[in-house]
Amino acid sequence: MKNRLYFNIDQKDNSLFDKIVLEQKTIGYYNLPKQDTSNILEFVDNFDKNIKNIMVLGIGGSSLGAKAVYEFLKPIKKPKRKLFFFESTDPLNISTLLNEVDLDKTHFLVISKSGGTVETISIFKYIFAQKSEKNSYTFITDNGSKLDKFAQDLGSKVFYLPPNVGGRFSVLSVVGLLPLALSGVNIKELLSGADKINRDFFKGKKLQSTLLKKASFYAKNCDRYSINTIFAYSENLKYFTEWFVQLWGESLGKVQKNSILNVGLTPIGLIGPKDQHSFLQLIMEGRRDKSVTFIKLKEFNPKITIPDITLKYLEELDSLHGIRFDKLINMQCDSIIEALLNEKDIPVDEIVISKVNAKSIGELIYYYELLTSLVGKLLGVDTYNQPGVEAGKIILKEKLSRY
Amino acid sequence: MKNRLYFNIDQKDNSLFDKIVLEQKTIGYYNLPKQDTSNILEFVDNFDKNIKNIMVLGIGGSSLGAKAVYEFLKPIKKPKRKLFFFESTDPLNISTLLNEVDLDKTHFLVISKSGGTVETISIFKYIFAQKSEKNSYTFITDNGSKLDKFAQDLGSKVFYLPPNVGGRFSVLSVVGLLPLALSGVNIKELLSGADKINRDFFKGKKLQSTLLKKASFYAKNCDRYSINTIFAYSENLKYFTEWFVQLWGESLGKVQKNSILNVGLTPIGLIGPKDQHSFLQLIMEGRRDKSVTFIKLKEFNPKITIPDITLKYLEELDSLHGIRFDKLINMQCDSIIEALLNEKDIPVDEIVISKVNAKSIGELIYYYELLTSLVGKLLGVDTYNQPGVEAGKIILKEKLSRY
Repeated sequence: MKNRLYFNIDQKDNSLFDKIVLEQKTIGYYNLPKQDTSNILEFVDNFDKNIKNIMVLGIGGSSLGAKAVYEFLKPIKKPKRKLFFFESTDPLNISTLLNEVDLDKTHFLVISKSGGTVETISIFKYIFAQKSEKNSYTFITDNGSKLDKFAQDLGSKVFYLPPNVGGRFSVLSVVGLLPLALSGVNIKELLSGADKINRDFFKGKKLQSTLLKKASFYAKNCDRYSINTIFAYSENLKYFTEWFVQLWGESLGKVQKNSILNVGLTPIGLIGPKDQHSFLQLIMEGRRDKSVTFIKLKEFNPKITIPDITLKYLEELDSLHGIRFDKLINMQCDSIIEALLNEKDIPVDEIVISKVNAKSIGELIYYYELLTSLVGKLLGVDTYNQPGVEAGKIILKEKLSRY
Repeated sequence: MKNRLYFNIDQKDNSLFDKIVLEQKTIGYYNLPKQDTSNILEFVDNFDKNIKNIMVLGIGGSSLGAKAVYEFLKPIKKPKRKLFFFESTDPLNISTLLNEVDLDKTHFLVISKSGGTVETISIFKYIFAQKSEKNSYTFITDNGSKLDKFAQDLGSKVFYLPPNVGGRFSVLSVVGLLPLALSGVNIKELLSGADKINRDFFKGKKLQSTLLKKASFYAKNCDRYSINTIFAYSENLKYFTEWFVQLWGESLGKVQKNSILNVGLTPIGLIGPKDQHSFLQLIMEGRRDKSVTFIKLKEFNPKITIPDITLKYLEELDSLHGIRFDKLINMQCDSIIEALLNEKDIPVDEIVISKVNAKSIGELIYYYELLTSLVGKLLGVDTYNQPGVEAGKIILKEKLSRY
């Protein structure tokens, strides 16, 4: 992975790096790249070969990460087992998903830190009423949680969340690794990508200064450039951008510590070239409040070429002949980068990953987790909590008890 | 459809309404609800019954609208023919889509206003090299365009875009209606929904003052509330929000007429309750720069209920028992509305549509088109052009000719 910044900022202050080194001792996600995955791999090796579908009951941090990796890799290799995600209480969505599978060939992963997630538990009850065999379920929860106790009582297999890993930083823990390994993803390769970024950053490779600069620029300019867009030139990265939206929005949108100020940076995920025909106009001519990070793939497959067919009256486009689509899509990306740089006041940077494989997405995930931690530190927020979502939950609880 | 605003603004100036009445005479989309669709319906009635897949080659305004309606309705009724959308030059995406269908049972709709769209024409050439029968293609383009001439020369069927209808306002024209009718959507019902909103607005029903107020509030507060989010509580509206993002972003993100000021409002699409676990924290505690429009469905199907199953240790959630999921999802939405209103400085409004059918989505589409026109007028921009996307196209052209 390479990251090139087209903006500059003086960042000679080492205290940011030191703070992250310190934080690493208490926040769990930093250690995930080096975890022992043998218990997961053993479970998957011995898993029922007749099970063809894995349905994940989880929402937010319990689904977005696995979905991002799964959807990134799915187009290059048929999954060993299909993954489905129940992320809504929408009755049409629940019944549509259930109608898509043969329940006899389906296993359910129930993922909730506490067991108190309304969406997950209500859907679980609905499914449990139809299928109550303990072997149809595996649970992922906190050690000692109410859900853990329920699952133990039921006699199902339980995996535990590692300590101090919040939902939106949990994709590289069992929360993401278990469904992904069951679907056939090489989770060691995934972690090796994350580990590469971890080492490059902490061992002081070039990526360290790039990340420190980028985080400093974003934090320093958080009022002027309050919106951070990712413009990814690969259809496979669509769900990665959704994972990024949660990570960035929920981590950084906070009341500052020791203050009453509402701060935050707004994440937006775009896919190129499609969104050149949608959001680009707003970036080019709208308010100058957006940074843009382009994500490019170095290598696409298959290698398919625009054929040498002249269409009468459309000869103008003959310049496309013989060009491979992978070249074209990257030329499109480069053209937009150039157009944006000509505007001078739009902060642009470019990330290049090598190709569609587990290692690349592992790199991207860990890169964004680190960047989020760095910016959170500079904004003076608690990156790892989400107190703002409690108010709605309390109101719902009241409504439910009154109903 | 009902729209309730939880914010207030004095809007007694009639000039905005008068300006829209005037604009209606020159801008084509206003008249689409009353168009004659007999040529489309006749074509569809006589269409080859063996064709089971319609592949749309189009991007931006040529695909987002049809996709929004198709994906909204698909879960309630199996489409007569499946729709696929080629929206990317990503080679993996192109080959994955083509591998999904039997080409002998597939028809292609090629949609481009001018015929100069790089993505559409390059993919067309790629497919045309494999399948060159004129009857496999139908073209939608401007009357007299280069693509029209090519299609006439080939001997394929051509439909024309109505005059003065831009891509992002074209879903209710043949651009959206033809693929939708081929897939089995009742396009008369779709247009009747749009027509209902048209009449309510222009005949001075309550919706008129609501829309005028909402547009005035958004335009007046465009610096303070520069981000407009839609929070839709139905999984089916996911692609509707993508259509909205193009409509809003590309229409309003402009250099002001008679000025050099970059203005614009940033659109964001969210789906509830999923995004309560993602973006909500940023709305609740982040910068106060976001308005939120909740979209609710009055009626969901099927009517499924959370069963009365007490789970040991999880008795706390027994309050869910016997509650129908449709009640639950709307209670979740109401809880978030209440939580946001408690914050005082987050502008909230609520749209309720009756249920998942063609009429409802027609209403939503036309409502947002009108709102966009109104806000564009107030921001002093040309709502219907997109000059900002030209720079990138010119650079690409140079790159292609140098290659």
